[in-house]
Amino acid sequence: MGSRQSPALVGAANLPSSVRIWEVGPRDGLQNEQQIIDTDHKVAFIDRLSAAGLPVIEATSFVRADRIPQLADGAQVMSRIARKPGVRYPVLVPNDRGLDAAVAADARDIAVFASATNTFAERNLGRTLANQMEMFTPVVQRAVGLDIPVRGYISMCFGDPWEGKVDPRQVVDVCRQLVDVGCGDISVGDTIGVATPGQVGELIGLLVDSGIGLGSIGVHFHDTYGQALANTLAALQAGVSTVDASTGGLGGCPYAESATGNLATEDLVWMLDGLGIQTGVDLGALVATSTWLARELGRPVASRVAQALRTST
Amino acid sequence: MGSRQSPALVGAANLPSSVRIWEVGPRDGLQNEQQIIDTDHKVAFIDRLSAAGLPVIEATSFVRADRIPQLADGAQVMSRIARKPGVRYPVLVPNDRGLDAAVAADARDIAVFASATNTFAERNLGRTLANQMEMFTPVVQRAVGLDIPVRGYISMCFGDPWEGKVDPRQVVDVCRQLVDVGCGDISVGDTIGVATPGQVGELIGLLVDSGIGLGSIGVHFHDTYGQALANTLAALQAGVSTVDASTGGLGGCPYAESATGNLATEDLVWMLDGLGIQTGVDLGALVATSTWLARELGRPVASRVAQALRTST
Repeated sequence: MGSRQSPALVGAANLPSSVRIWEVGPRDGLQNEQQIIDTDHKVAFIDRLSAAGLPVIEATSFVRADRIPQLADGAQVMSRIARKPGVRYPVLVPNDRGLDAAVAADARDIAVFASATNTFAERNLGRTLANQMEMFTPVVQRAVGLDIPVRGYISMCFGDPWEGKVDPRQVVDVCRQLVDVGCGDISVGDTIGVATPGQVGELIGLLVDSGIGLGSIGVHFHDTYGQALANTLAALQAGVSTVDASTGGLGGCPYAESATGNLATEDLVWMLDGLGIQTGVDLGALVATSTWLARELGRPVASRVAQALRTST
Repeated sequence: MGSRQSPALVGAANLPSSVRIWEVGPRDGLQNEQQIIDTDHKVAFIDRLSAAGLPVIEATSFVRADRIPQLADGAQVMSRIARKPGVRYPVLVPNDRGLDAAVAADARDIAVFASATNTFAERNLGRTLANQMEMFTPVVQRAVGLDIPVRGYISMCFGDPWEGKVDPRQVVDVCRQLVDVGCGDISVGDTIGVATPGQVGELIGLLVDSGIGLGSIGVHFHDTYGQALANTLAALQAGVSTVDASTGGLGGCPYAESATGNLATEDLVWMLDGLGIQTGVDLGALVATSTWLARELGRPVASRVAQALRTST
């Protein structure tokens, strides 16, 4: 087998004709790496991803360097990447100071990070579920005033290590709050990877019922329990066409020490190619990037597609 | 999180209310192990699986011992397992001599193994696609005459390492031939793991169009490219309710040296539990079995559910 499949002859009814892959490897993936990666490698990683055809590449965070030392070089990364026309390079921003730094680095898209549960809001943000928006609202409103689009991430949307199963109505409330203050996109995250496809379809339906357009909804799955790609299929069937993924499956979940983290971009592209869904991504170039990064990090390549193609070619 | 999820509140429309998991670990899984496993461990593995609630456990093969030394103790395995009422213990039988041995061992269900492609038929069976049925027909007919139900496996149903993409009409022809000579069940296998969900839905539809009942169709996916559970979801949505899986993901594909082999039974049960689909399987007991077997084999536990639950409990 080569690195390409033929599109499915049939069976893709009710699926979108194209999917926008929101690549999170350079930010969400590298953030969870223990060893500090130098700026050269981060820039090369991002430039390889844009060359492979990824349309959105979350590039870094502007957070306190003592909190996330891995991403302390965000300004350098943003100044050194070769910005490809048409490609977006969002950065994560937690507060007003982060937005200042992002704007100074000429970031043209930002993201904020909210919680669907009270416990995680308190542990990760130092806020309650009820008052976390006090943290985001000024940032989102100022960004929107600067014509900078904002994406809102919502974590723990299906299960929470402390609270168990999460009420989807609670998730919808947080999503609505983010949209209401100006987020043009949201990303619902299964941070600990416990969701199954029925829950995904249910939540997407409730989000649409709340007035959030399908075009604004992205999904973010972790493969901790092996469910990420099945959940993605359920989201596509519910009309979603933005899917987060991380090249090589980079990015573990700190609450479950599984070998697998984010949905691997290669595994996602394999499925979408097979379904005849356009992504603009060249799978061969993506696998080469994943293999290169794994070698540079001194570890086996983690995605199954990259493993399989490496041994079959 | 405990080892249980709540059933999905909604979203399971068009899915079966129950699924029969056809556990293939003791045969298809162990067959691919390099180290010879002693009979005690095989018997304990099978008895743990029946205690965990698996309804069908493919126990061994009656093939030439010089071909598959790992399963040379088939008769001893069959005589020593504690046969649980209501549980089926099929065995793989390649020919008349194998059927003699299976009957002598009081096997009450058998399976035969066909190919959907000519190249694999020649390499694996020493027959052409056109004449492979000459090998199976006498075995199937004699078994049916003895009131022994026969399942027909069909390998390489979606892709073949030598021939590339496989025409689904060719797969349907082989399935029809097996059903016509007396197989009550078939299992369509993605032996090299390249299929994507649209192809699965298409093939199931063509099988049904050919007159094969949904109740007779099983699916057998490999996770080589990470697609197994998404493909399973597509098969369930097409009306299939028999799914092959291997505890711990045991069983590599010899044509792609990926870390992952068969769909792991634990990952399947996690999804089905989440969808509120009945299986009769106790996930905790299954994960304990998978963890025990991995320890006995001296390797890390391979399924993602077992990895995740081991570290979270």
